[in-house]
Amino acid sequence: MTPVLDLAGIFVFALSGALEGVRKRFDAVGIAVLAFFTAVGGGIVRDLFIGVQPAALRDTAYLLVPIAAAVIAFFWHRQVERAMPGVLVFDAAGLGLFCAVGTSKALYYGLAPMHAVFLGVCTAVGGGVLRDVLSGEKPTLLYDRELYAVPAMLGSTMMAVLYALDVRGFTATLSSAVVAFAFRILAMRYRWRAPLAWGLGGRE
Amino acid sequence: MTPVLDLAGIFVFALSGALEGVRKRFDAVGIAVLAFFTAVGGGIVRDLFIGVQPAALRDTAYLLVPIAAAVIAFFWHRQVERAMPGVLVFDAAGLGLFCAVGTSKALYYGLAPMHAVFLGVCTAVGGGVLRDVLSGEKPTLLYDRELYAVPAMLGSTMMAVLYALDVRGFTATLSSAVVAFAFRILAMRYRWRAPLAWGLGGRE
Amino acid sequence: MTPVLDLAGIFVFALSGALEGVRKRFDAVGIAVLAFFTAVGGGIVRDLFIGVQPAALRDTAYLLVPIAAAVIAFFWHRQVERAMPGVLVFDAAGLGLFCAVGTSKALYYGLAPMHAVFLGVCTAVGGGVLRDVLSGEKPTLLYDRELYAVPAMLGSTMMAVLYALDVRGFTATLSSAVVAFAFRILAMRYRWRAPLAWGLGGRE
Repeated sequence: MTPVLDLAGIFVFALSGALEGVRKRFDAVGIAVLAFFTAVGGGIVRDLFIGVQPAALRDTAYLLVPIAAAVIAFFWHRQVERAMPGVLVFDAAGLGLFCAVGTSKALYYGLAPMHAVFLGVCTAVGGGVLRDVLSGEKPTLLYDRELYAVPAMLGSTMMAVLYALDVRGFTATLSSAVVAFAFRILAMRYRWRAPLAWGLGGRE
Repeated sequence: MTPVLDLAGIFVFALSGALEGVRKRFDAVGIAVLAFFTAVGGGIVRDLFIGVQPAALRDTAYLLVPIAAAVIAFFWHRQVERAMPGVLVFDAAGLGLFCAVGTSKALYYGLAPMHAVFLGVCTAVGGGVLRDVLSGEKPTLLYDRELYAVPAMLGSTMMAVLYALDVRGFTATLSSAVVAFAFRILAMRYRWRAPLAWGLGGRE
Repeated sequence: MTPVLDLAGIFVFALSGALEGVRKRFDAVGIAVLAFFTAVGGGIVRDLFIGVQPAALRDTAYLLVPIAAAVIAFFWHRQVERAMPGVLVFDAAGLGLFCAVGTSKALYYGLAPMHAVFLGVCTAVGGGVLRDVLSGEKPTLLYDRELYAVPAMLGSTMMAVLYALDVRGFTATLSSAVVAFAFRILAMRYRWRAPLAWGLGGRE
C-alpha cells in the first residue's frame, strides 16, 4: 500500500517541479531535471544525512515516475495549470506522506527522535527548496509565510511519538500523514500565516 | 591512459569555472572555488549518490589541477577568453569522457543501468550546474536549449549497453566518449536546440 | 573544553544566519532554517565528504543551539544587530575553531593533509556559502574580497603541520584556531583585500 502512495506523492511533487520549469520557460532538459529533484530531492537529502544510498538510486520507479510527470507537463501544462487547485490537495497529501515516511526511515536507522523529525521535515520540504534553488529563486519555503514546513513538523512529531509508543507500520504512517495533510489543508483554507520577526509588522 | 584524459577533462572544466569567476569579478578565492567545483562537482555528486568517498578527496591531483587552472585564469584570462572557441572543443571532450567514466563507475558499484546512465549524466553536467548555482545564476543547463545533457545521455547509454554486452575497459570508455563528443560538436555546429514546452513558441 | 567552544561557535554562526533571515524578511521557518544550515552546514559538507554520518545528526545540541539562536534573533534582532561589531569578533573565533576542528577530524579519518586542509576550510566557510545560496544571493565569500577563507586556510594548514609533527589534541586545536582568529581580526582591522583577477583594477 505505502509504495503506491509513495509513488503517487512523487508524481505530484514531480508535476509541481515540471510546471515550475514550464513557467520559467526552461527547455525539456530543465523540465525533467526540476521534476526529478523536486520529487525525490528531499528523500535524497534524508538518505545522505542518514548515510545510506538514496532510495531514488535503487528503484527505477523513482526515475520513471518523474520522467512521466515531466512528459505530461511538457505537453499538457495548460490543462495541469488549470487543475492546480486540485493538485494542491494532492501536494498536501504528498507532504503528509513524505514527512511520515521520512521520519520512520530515520527512526529505523537509529536516529534520535528529534533528528528523525528533522529528517522527516527535510524529506517533505527538501525537494521544493531544491526546485527553487535550481530555478534561481529564493526558496519560497523560507519567506512566503505559508504553513508548509509546520504541518510536516507536526506529522513527523506524531510519527516519532507513535514510534516511541510502539505503534508502527501502516497505521502509524497513515495517521501521521493524515494529521499533516489535514493541518496543511486547514492552513490553506484559513490562510494561517507564519510570523515575521518581532516588530517587522508581520501581523496584518 | 584514462587518468591522463581524466585530468585533462578536469583541467578544461576548471578553466571554464575559473573564467566564469573572472567574468563576474569574483576575487581570487571565488575563482578558485568555482574552478574546483565546476571541475569535480559532478563527480562528487556521483560518488555521494553511489555511497563512496568522493574521488576528489582521495587524489591530490583533483585538487592541484583545478588550482592550476584557477591560477592560469587569474593571470591570463584575456588570452584564455580569446582561445574560448577552442576551449569549447575541449569542453565537449571533457563532457564525453566524464559521462563515460561516471556511468562505468556506477555500473561497477552495482547500480542498475538506468541509474548508471543518470549518474553518468550527473558526472558530466553536475559541475556546470554547481558553478551556476554558486555564481548566483540559474543553471544554463536548464534553460539555454543547447544540447549539452543530451549528448551526455547518449554517451552514458552507449556505455551501459556496451557494459551489458561485456565490452569494458578502455575500448568502451573511449568509444562512448567519442559518441558523446561527436554529437555535442554536431549540436554546436548545427545549432540543434532542445524544445520548450509544447505551445510556448520554442520552434523558430 | 572543545565541545563548549564548539557549541559557542555554532551559536554565533547560527545567529549570523538567523539575522540574515530577519534582514531579508524571511518568516519564522526561514529564520530557523538559515540559522541551522549556517551553523552546521559546513560540518555537514565535511562529514559527507569524509563519508561519515554528519555530527549534526548525532547530537541534539547541534539542533537545539541553532534553534535557540533563531528564537533570540526572532525577538531581539535589533539588539543583536547593534551588538554586531562584537559578534564579528565571535564569528572570527568560530571561524578559527571550525577550521581547526574540521581539519583534525579529516586527518583522524585518514585523509591526506592537503584534503584535510580543504575540508577544514569547508567546515569554516561552508555554512556561510549555504546561507547565501539559500537566501538567493551570490555567496559573499566568492566576491567580497574580505579575507575569510584565507585565515581558515592558514589555521587548517597549521593544524595539518602540527598533526604531522605529532602535536595533537587541545593544544594543536587551540593554537591553530588562535592563528586563524588573529589573522582574521588583523584582516578586518587593516582592511586587507583578496585580489581580483589580474588587470581588472582590483588594486585601489
